[in-house]
Amino acid sequence: MSHLDFYANKSVLITGGLGFIGSNLAQRLVDLDARVTLVDSLIPAYGGNLFNIAGYEERLRVNIADVRDPYSMRALVQGQDVLFNLAGQVSHLDSMEDPFTDLEINARSQLSILEACRHENPAIKIVYAGTRQQYGKPRYLPLDEDHIQAPTDVNGVNKMAGEWYHIVYHNAYDLAATSLRLTNTYGPRQLVKHKRQGFIGWFVRLAVRGETIQLYGDGSQLRDLCYVDDVVDAFLRAGASAETNGQVYNLGGPEPVSLLELSRLIIEIAGRGRVELVPWPPARKRIDIGDVYSSYARAEQALGWRPTTPLRAGLERMIEYYERYGEYYWGASKD
Amino acid sequence: MSHLDFYANKSVLITGGLGFIGSNLAQRLVDLDARVTLVDSLIPAYGGNLFNIAGYEERLRVNIADVRDPYSMRALVQGQDVLFNLAGQVSHLDSMEDPFTDLEINARSQLSILEACRHENPAIKIVYAGTRQQYGKPRYLPLDEDHIQAPTDVNGVNKMAGEWYHIVYHNAYDLAATSLRLTNTYGPRQLVKHKRQGFIGWFVRLAVRGETIQLYGDGSQLRDLCYVDDVVDAFLRAGASAETNGQVYNLGGPEPVSLLELSRLIIEIAGRGRVELVPWPPARKRIDIGDVYSSYARAEQALGWRPTTPLRAGLERMIEYYERYGEYYWGASKD
Repeated sequence: MSHLDFYANKSVLITGGLGFIGSNLAQRLVDLDARVTLVDSLIPAYGGNLFNIAGYEERLRVNIADVRDPYSMRALVQGQDVLFNLAGQVSHLDSMEDPFTDLEINARSQLSILEACRHENPAIKIVYAGTRQQYGKPRYLPLDEDHIQAPTDVNGVNKMAGEWYHIVYHNAYDLAATSLRLTNTYGPRQLVKHKRQGFIGWFVRLAVRGETIQLYGDGSQLRDLCYVDDVVDAFLRAGASAETNGQVYNLGGPEPVSLLELSRLIIEIAGRGRVELVPWPPARKRIDIGDVYSSYARAEQALGWRPTTPLRAGLERMIEYYERYGEYYWGASKD
Repeated sequence: MSHLDFYANKSVLITGGLGFIGSNLAQRLVDLDARVTLVDSLIPAYGGNLFNIAGYEERLRVNIADVRDPYSMRALVQGQDVLFNLAGQVSHLDSMEDPFTDLEINARSQLSILEACRHENPAIKIVYAGTRQQYGKPRYLPLDEDHIQAPTDVNGVNKMAGEWYHIVYHNAYDLAATSLRLTNTYGPRQLVKHKRQGFIGWFVRLAVRGETIQLYGDGSQLRDLCYVDDVVDAFLRAGASAETNGQVYNLGGPEPVSLLELSRLIIEIAGRGRVELVPWPPARKRIDIGDVYSSYARAEQALGWRPTTPLRAGLERMIEYYERYGEYYWGASKD
């Protein structure tokens, strides 16, 4: 049985289900005949967007709730076969301005979700969205799962705690939990209404709207980018595999690319926009982590997963999406 | 100037100041002519004990408050030169039974203490009490600071988060924070009223009261033990050193010792008690981490610190203390 067949008639809960990765995952699962319930709080500054499930509204269930609400989560995990646990506060900047909200969502809520599963549905399979940010500034490249965790902001600390609660609940209570440490994910349905949740969506927004992408320094910093369909495939594989229980896996992208190359490629595909190199603001330079990209060798070994979408093809699909549906994503904010 | 001279006329705040390490540190600081304020909530199951400062009551200030109270902490950090940040929930078992309390004390309160320092007293020096438990089951021995962090219980996850908030606040805001990752600390004033906070105090209690120390398996598991005066000296050194800002250091003990050797030594010194080997309860065996001990090479390099108290000498002093003052420590509970 392939990992795709696994989901037919399975009940699947996705926290953060109206967000970028959650909604792409949800559509895929619906197409695989899963019974899908999305949990999302639609906090305005976050990535949840009802347009993300356009055309699928009748084929899945949307439950508006906040993962910080332990009672709702206790009710929602019941009867589910798989939980894709994607809800999170993902802005590094916001985590420094409001560290307690970040802690509530990324740490405390994870504990309460795990407590809910342990008490209400101990047989559930859980796949958590970790982040390569847990590693902090690389000591060597590519980052592997044995790299020391030394997060550089409050968001990284709380994501690290959130992941480790999952592993502890596996080791102590046999909860079937797995963590995928995501790198930079990009693609349709990504938040682009502000730039506090990562650079790729923002770069695409600027290019599609004919504006200027500013890069710090010479733009030579390397990053790896993983197309959202590949990330979705990794979640599906992990969710269908009992061997991954209690384990953590990096995702990664095809060859790393510099921010300058990436910007030029986005501008070329969009046919609009321009790139400008500006000096590093001292406050940013000091928290810069230099080049960073991950090894996905362990995921390939355990899950048979690898990123299959070339960067150009992924960006073409993403840019086409925002050219067509941008009005549902730009939002009021331009900050 | 030695690290001891540094403290004359300095204002020093100790969270968890009525606890085991905090009270030993407080007495030393008073003797060094520091102006010492202790913060402690005297939660009954925890280690705070007014008898721990017997004879010093008039030479320091005790402020009963909970580190979970952000308003008290904002007021208390003002005007302090050094904060020894020792308050914590330290029971692994309690952290699994009540993970949210552990999170509130060991993670959320640390964030609010750091926010208090950042806003009210950005020049304060902070030394945090981390734990070797952050490493989880050793992949190699001795544990060094580059060992991967893979905590095995909720307490370990939250202590890891609490430590990393300190490092993040150093890197982002220049707060002068240092973490010491403690191993098994032992000595006078340690909690012995129940066994949920570590084995050494419990073993000493059993021996002094002529009872039986039960060991799982063959008792061959190795541990390192560090006498509290040595731990106090490490805190004093770290608190007086600007070079340690943003860094983490293991403490460690003299040669590792097996639990069986340790038990026999305690019984020999006490002249009472006995040891019994019992089969591993399956629930304990599964969370057992085997041998564990730390390298303190980095602390020795940076701080000139090493444990100087031989195990026998430390145990003699500890046992003498409980033979004399045990009535203030046994408590009602025998669990």
